[in-house]
Amino acid sequence: MAKMIKKRSKKAGLPPGTLVHIGEQRAEASKITVINYDDADYHEKQLKSVEECFPYKDKPSMTWLNIDGIHQKEILEKLSGCFGFHPLVMEDIMNTDQRPKMEDYADYLYIVLKMLYYNEKENRISTEQVSLIVAPHTVISFQEGLEGDVFGSLRERLKNDKGRIRKMGADYLAYSMIDAVVDSYFMILEKLGEKIELLEEELISDPGMKTLHDIHYLKREMIFLRKAVWPLREVISMMARGESPLIHESMKLYLRDVYDHTIQVIDTIETLRDMVTGMLDIYLSSVSNRLNAVMKVLTIIATIFIPLTFIVGVYGMNFRYMPELEWRLGYPLVWFVMLVIGISMLIVFRKKNWL
Amino acid sequence: MAKMIKKRSKKAGLPPGTLVHIGEQRAEASKITVINYDDADYHEKQLKSVEECFPYKDKPSMTWLNIDGIHQKEILEKLSGCFGFHPLVMEDIMNTDQRPKMEDYADYLYIVLKMLYYNEKENRISTEQVSLIVAPHTVISFQEGLEGDVFGSLRERLKNDKGRIRKMGADYLAYSMIDAVVDSYFMILEKLGEKIELLEEELISDPGMKTLHDIHYLKREMIFLRKAVWPLREVISMMARGESPLIHESMKLYLRDVYDHTIQVIDTIETLRDMVTGMLDIYLSSVSNRLNAVMKVLTIIATIFIPLTFIVGVYGMNFRYMPELEWRLGYPLVWFVMLVIGISMLIVFRKKNWL
Amino acid sequence: MAKMIKKRSKKAGLPPGTLVHIGEQRAEASKITVINYDDADYHEKQLKSVEECFPYKDKPSMTWLNIDGIHQKEILEKLSGCFGFHPLVMEDIMNTDQRPKMEDYADYLYIVLKMLYYNEKENRISTEQVSLIVAPHTVISFQEGLEGDVFGSLRERLKNDKGRIRKMGADYLAYSMIDAVVDSYFMILEKLGEKIELLEEELISDPGMKTLHDIHYLKREMIFLRKAVWPLREVISMMARGESPLIHESMKLYLRDVYDHTIQVIDTIETLRDMVTGMLDIYLSSVSNRLNAVMKVLTIIATIFIPLTFIVGVYGMNFRYMPELEWRLGYPLVWFVMLVIGISMLIVFRKKNWL
Amino acid sequence: MAKMIKKRSKKAGLPPGTLVHIGEQRAEASKITVINYDDADYHEKQLKSVEECFPYKDKPSMTWLNIDGIHQKEILEKLSGCFGFHPLVMEDIMNTDQRPKMEDYADYLYIVLKMLYYNEKENRISTEQVSLIVAPHTVISFQEGLEGDVFGSLRERLKNDKGRIRKMGADYLAYSMIDAVVDSYFMILEKLGEKIELLEEELISDPGMKTLHDIHYLKREMIFLRKAVWPLREVISMMARGESPLIHESMKLYLRDVYDHTIQVIDTIETLRDMVTGMLDIYLSSVSNRLNAVMKVLTIIATIFIPLTFIVGVYGMNFRYMPELEWRLGYPLVWFVMLVIGISMLIVFRKKNWL
Amino acid sequence: MAKMIKKRSKKAGLPPGTLVHIGEQRAEASKITVINYDDADYHEKQLKSVEECFPYKDKPSMTWLNIDGIHQKEILEKLSGCFGFHPLVMEDIMNTDQRPKMEDYADYLYIVLKMLYYNEKENRISTEQVSLIVAPHTVISFQEGLEGDVFGSLRERLKNDKGRIRKMGADYLAYSMIDAVVDSYFMILEKLGEKIELLEEELISDPGMKTLHDIHYLKREMIFLRKAVWPLREVISMMARGESPLIHESMKLYLRDVYDHTIQVIDTIETLRDMVTGMLDIYLSSVSNRLNAVMKVLTIIATIFIPLTFIVGVYGMNFRYMPELEWRLGYPLVWFVMLVIGISMLIVFRKKNWL
Repeated sequence: MAKMIKKRSKKAGLPPGTLVHIGEQRAEASKITVINYDDADYHEKQLKSVEECFPYKDKPSMTWLNIDGIHQKEILEKLSGCFGFHPLVMEDIMNTDQRPKMEDYADYLYIVLKMLYYNEKENRISTEQVSLIVAPHTVISFQEGLEGDVFGSLRERLKNDKGRIRKMGADYLAYSMIDAVVDSYFMILEKLGEKIELLEEELISDPGMKTLHDIHYLKREMIFLRKAVWPLREVISMMARGESPLIHESMKLYLRDVYDHTIQVIDTIETLRDMVTGMLDIYLSSVSNRLNAVMKVLTIIATIFIPLTFIVGVYGMNFRYMPELEWRLGYPLVWFVMLVIGISMLIVFRKKNWL
Repeated sequence: MAKMIKKRSKKAGLPPGTLVHIGEQRAEASKITVINYDDADYHEKQLKSVEECFPYKDKPSMTWLNIDGIHQKEILEKLSGCFGFHPLVMEDIMNTDQRPKMEDYADYLYIVLKMLYYNEKENRISTEQVSLIVAPHTVISFQEGLEGDVFGSLRERLKNDKGRIRKMGADYLAYSMIDAVVDSYFMILEKLGEKIELLEEELISDPGMKTLHDIHYLKREMIFLRKAVWPLREVISMMARGESPLIHESMKLYLRDVYDHTIQVIDTIETLRDMVTGMLDIYLSSVSNRLNAVMKVLTIIATIFIPLTFIVGVYGMNFRYMPELEWRLGYPLVWFVMLVIGISMLIVFRKKNWL
Repeated sequence: MAKMIKKRSKKAGLPPGTLVHIGEQRAEASKITVINYDDADYHEKQLKSVEECFPYKDKPSMTWLNIDGIHQKEILEKLSGCFGFHPLVMEDIMNTDQRPKMEDYADYLYIVLKMLYYNEKENRISTEQVSLIVAPHTVISFQEGLEGDVFGSLRERLKNDKGRIRKMGADYLAYSMIDAVVDSYFMILEKLGEKIELLEEELISDPGMKTLHDIHYLKREMIFLRKAVWPLREVISMMARGESPLIHESMKLYLRDVYDHTIQVIDTIETLRDMVTGMLDIYLSSVSNRLNAVMKVLTIIATIFIPLTFIVGVYGMNFRYMPELEWRLGYPLVWFVMLVIGISMLIVFRKKNWL
Repeated sequence: MAKMIKKRSKKAGLPPGTLVHIGEQRAEASKITVINYDDADYHEKQLKSVEECFPYKDKPSMTWLNIDGIHQKEILEKLSGCFGFHPLVMEDIMNTDQRPKMEDYADYLYIVLKMLYYNEKENRISTEQVSLIVAPHTVISFQEGLEGDVFGSLRERLKNDKGRIRKMGADYLAYSMIDAVVDSYFMILEKLGEKIELLEEELISDPGMKTLHDIHYLKREMIFLRKAVWPLREVISMMARGESPLIHESMKLYLRDVYDHTIQVIDTIETLRDMVTGMLDIYLSSVSNRLNAVMKVLTIIATIFIPLTFIVGVYGMNFRYMPELEWRLGYPLVWFVMLVIGISMLIVFRKKNWL
Repeated sequence: MAKMIKKRSKKAGLPPGTLVHIGEQRAEASKITVINYDDADYHEKQLKSVEECFPYKDKPSMTWLNIDGIHQKEILEKLSGCFGFHPLVMEDIMNTDQRPKMEDYADYLYIVLKMLYYNEKENRISTEQVSLIVAPHTVISFQEGLEGDVFGSLRERLKNDKGRIRKMGADYLAYSMIDAVVDSYFMILEKLGEKIELLEEELISDPGMKTLHDIHYLKREMIFLRKAVWPLREVISMMARGESPLIHESMKLYLRDVYDHTIQVIDTIETLRDMVTGMLDIYLSSVSNRLNAVMKVLTIIATIFIPLTFIVGVYGMNFRYMPELEWRLGYPLVWFVMLVIGISMLIVFRKKNWL
């Protein structure tokens, strides 16, 4: 979990706008892909050098430039030089420790998103930062370069579907990408929901220290998730407020839709948190209930046998003058007395509801 | 409870406006009912096909179109084609995982509500999404298709009561439906109130792990309820703000009334939550009180008899030279000493308030 | 406490404005009293029928009409017919499950208050809803009809005191009634303060399950109180905002004064709540402290005597060849060893601070 | 603590503006002191009757009138008559159960402050209400009449210091008094800080029920303090907003300064509260840690000796045919077996980290 | 921790604007350094007396004046006299008990920051107040005079880097200093992250009272940190609002960037707090789990051997007539019975999941 605190310290003291990669390097070399399309045509190409993408800058058709791997600062510098981006934008792209945000640089919008995956192998949520630059006719996306992304079906639609999406501009493409990201959150929530269900069963059948650690781990993942999703609300509502000419009036309905989905995700996170908190309470209660059960058994056995052991101790004494020892019925009498004591104790316990 | 997280993942990657049913399919085929009325007339008819309702579109009299079952996407597509609804509206209608909301599409309003039932068989609250489209002269309602709804008495009033409701427009009908939904929440609250009362008695008479689980279950149902009711406040206040020409000025008083009811429902939910939280505290306290009681008994018995058992052990030793063993009054003396010790211990315990 | 949830379900499905009494019927028949006064004159009369009050409607002198008992819907209907009140107002008057609120119907204001009494017999706070209708020259108050109200001294002042109050209008009378209600809250707070003091003493002297239940009961009464007082703040600040011509500019100072009192009541409730929460903590701590004390005694007795009992057990064995048994000083030696063990254990416990 | 709820009930039912003293009477007779000064002159006089102060009303030089003891309603009535104060102001001055507040009566401002002292004898914070009336050229202060106040050094500065303060008006004097009050809060905070330090040491060395009660007492004093300081923020920011012509533009910097101090006081109170809450957690943990330590000792002693006592019990049986009893080495063998059992148990406990 | 409450009481009663040093004196004599630069030149000089810096006042090139050590009031008075600062500013500079804030004095801005260091020796965060005065062409910084500060690399950039920073004005320099301070917070967060990781391991391997105290200490440091960082948000957003002509429009992007970093710091603090709170829960649970484990062992041993010890006690009685004692197989039979009892108990415990 301490990974939540990324090594940012290497940036301390550097001037603003210095490009330093903060985060894990997840790919060998950056991969640059360009998708160029309009109503009629569609081209997809993997570029060998960053310079190859410069000609797309002035094309009237839509261009989606995707960069996988953000650790190579030469590529970002060249892009920035060509498109004229602010150094602070480039700095933020390389720093994967950003909150989701939107910044309006008049000529273009800079948007930061968090893509979440459920890492089946390590059994935890992993995160990847996606930066979008939305300019007229152009969307540039920057990913950290994990295997795959959530935009697969979006690419399919661009390729095959000659409808709406091919006619629309950069704002619609950016919206579609945000929508894809938010949709992927629902999958994470389902996964967490399943985990919670499993833990609830474990909680009833066999709760132990492991259950407790699992509950806490889940709680932390929820904090993690919330941190990634919560600021997105603000991002989308900023976009929908329509102050930038880069986002057309007609996008409002779509943005409201994805805003609703974000609210739903946040709502569900809150609900899951409440559920996990409730589980913690149940865990603690069942632990103390168990202690109670154990104590009762001890008490019953001990309170019955301690007095009886005392009695047999009495007649184990070696005094010369102990009349009872000489009685014919001494021994059975002692047994009788002890039985009476034992049984009456059992009755008392029953009445106290301890059995 | 994991049902709170509906399987939305099948929608991931689809373009916005794609009709996919999310939720349980609760009816075989959709049932379409039309109620057409004005001040003088009233007709009610069950339609065989969706096309039959198209003629009602341009009638000057009020039309209430009710669709039970929202899983058949052809019906929604045809309706949408005839009335000119936005694809996002149709998408939201089929997705039962919505929060209550209102959206203003200029020509019509789209309202989402949650109908709640107390499911006596499964002893839990079940929920059904109701979508309303309010257009001039027309209200279209979409239900999931559970047996029955909360609009029975509303239909009665429309049929028999020639008064106010038959003279008013679509806004009043929509208001009446919201009012019916909010009224039904009070019944759920009463049910929960009864459950809480039962649990409180159980808490005093015989609290156990089951009580704990019941308390937590109740707590969750409260979260559930809150999630359904809370956003409704915003919906009604948006309607009352009167920005849409579809809602007449004269509706304000009525909307304020139903708004008040919603606030009352929310208030009561908060109160019930506080009560349930208090019950949890009492439960935990009574568990630890019980442990205390058990420990006291153990301690009293043990602390009295352990020293006495030691004493009788002493005189059970087989040393050749033990003068006490030869004394005439050795045995009664030991009894006397032991009685003194036992009784003085009881006195100490009494003074310490342990008996 | 489940009484917090009143039987509202009987209203479900009825059209808005239907008069249904919700709450306990506290009086046999409604009692109508009229007080008519101006600077010079004062009349007080108990009316036999509601029609008798109609002539007061157009008098230029101030009229205070008080109705005790709100379960007779004929009376309300007649009043409403004469004065022209909105059906929703009449509906709210009969429904005692309202939050304090103010509604501005242009011609008159509708105000809901909660009167609180400390019910000495049942040892709990009981509540009564007071509805005020403030029209020019007329204030109509509706009470549920418990024995007495908090307006006794207000009536005295009207009767005897020819000063300010007799010269002022309906707004001042309404303000005086709200002031009387808020003043009565201070008495409830004093009562609760006394109860808390008693409980604190009990908490120190002899805490038990009863104390716990009392603390929780108090906590609930606080929730109850808060629910009644909190919305009043908003009511008074709405009145003071001076948007209604029914409330004169000169009333502002008085309304600010009663607003301050309300804030003080709320403040005190919050303080009392904090105190009660602190008491709960102390209760739980003292329970676990007690358990500790009990456990210590058990441990001390057991750890001292268990080893000693073992030793005497050793010399109670019947082996033929046990040299110690034959020693002259065997017996005193064993006693000496046991004393050394016992005393050194006591020293250890002392050092561990257990004694 | 129940003193937090002052006996206000004696006011119930009285008309607004009735002068009733609420609070303790702390002085025999009220003491009236007048300080009159301008740039050049300074006079200080103790008045014998309230009438003596009337001439100061129209002097062009600054007058500070201080009244110690607010229980004599004649004095307040006369003052009010001379200066023309509103009856509600006089009522509030006599009621010491006010929150800090500021009221703008156009001709004068009415300000309520809480002066706090650390009462060394009773080891608790005691409070005194100070009311200020700020008119042009005049400040009237009303105190409850405890021994001394926090304005000593302010008087010194007025007397000796011919600088700034003697040139400024009533607003600066009022500001200086508020500043003196806020400065005195820092002394209370230091006192509380010391108490917390002492309690922390006690918590580590020897925590008991007394520690718990002390922590709770501290917590309450914090609530108390917060109640006195929190509303002051609003008072000062209202003054600084500069809506009253009685407060000059040039005062803004000074008011911002004292506002900052108030925020600092509130900040520190919050920090202290967090610390006290943390102490409560530590207390509870150390109590349960102790229980653990006690239980471990019991368990170790008992689990070692109970089996051994069983073994010696076996050979204390009186069966005629028990071959071991006849063995030559029976006795040492039993000792050997018991030592093996005891030591191996110790090893197990060591491994379980219980020793 | 009580150091959080600084000795402010020595200021009580003094007039506003009095220079009193509040805080530790950390340097012998104040050290004054001046850096003067423009696009082309760079001078750095340590001054011997404060008067030497007066000539810089009217230079057109940028001047950064740094004062280490704020306890010498003569220096501040002289500076103030030369530059014309308000006495309240000087008072605040000497009082190290400020919250981060910005004050706009038209001619200059006064900014308070908190520099945080991780004190490796004492293993805790230590704090140092930095005051900035931003005037046209001049920034004056006041430090408490600890060894070193966080501006080292900023000085390097000024010296070597002829780019942007040398061309910009006082606003950019002030921004760079704030940026350096915020950057240093990330280092503190990493340090805390490491501490948390270590504590988490300790929590799993060997939790004790020390762990608890460490967790609480960490919690306090978090409160401390939060207090220093939280108000900074407001400071930066005030600067970015651009109401002062001292801050150019072009700074907005940079201020938004440092604002983002501040939000990130606050976010991380919140996350760390949640983590620490979770650790406390785990600690408490593992303590009670341990108690459970201990109790189980005690219960198992005791419940098995107590009945067996009773049995052997029975046959240790000395009754003359005890037929079993005479049986040939009495002794082995008793062993057999005892084995049966012991083993069946073990089976029961196994089934109850206690082993």
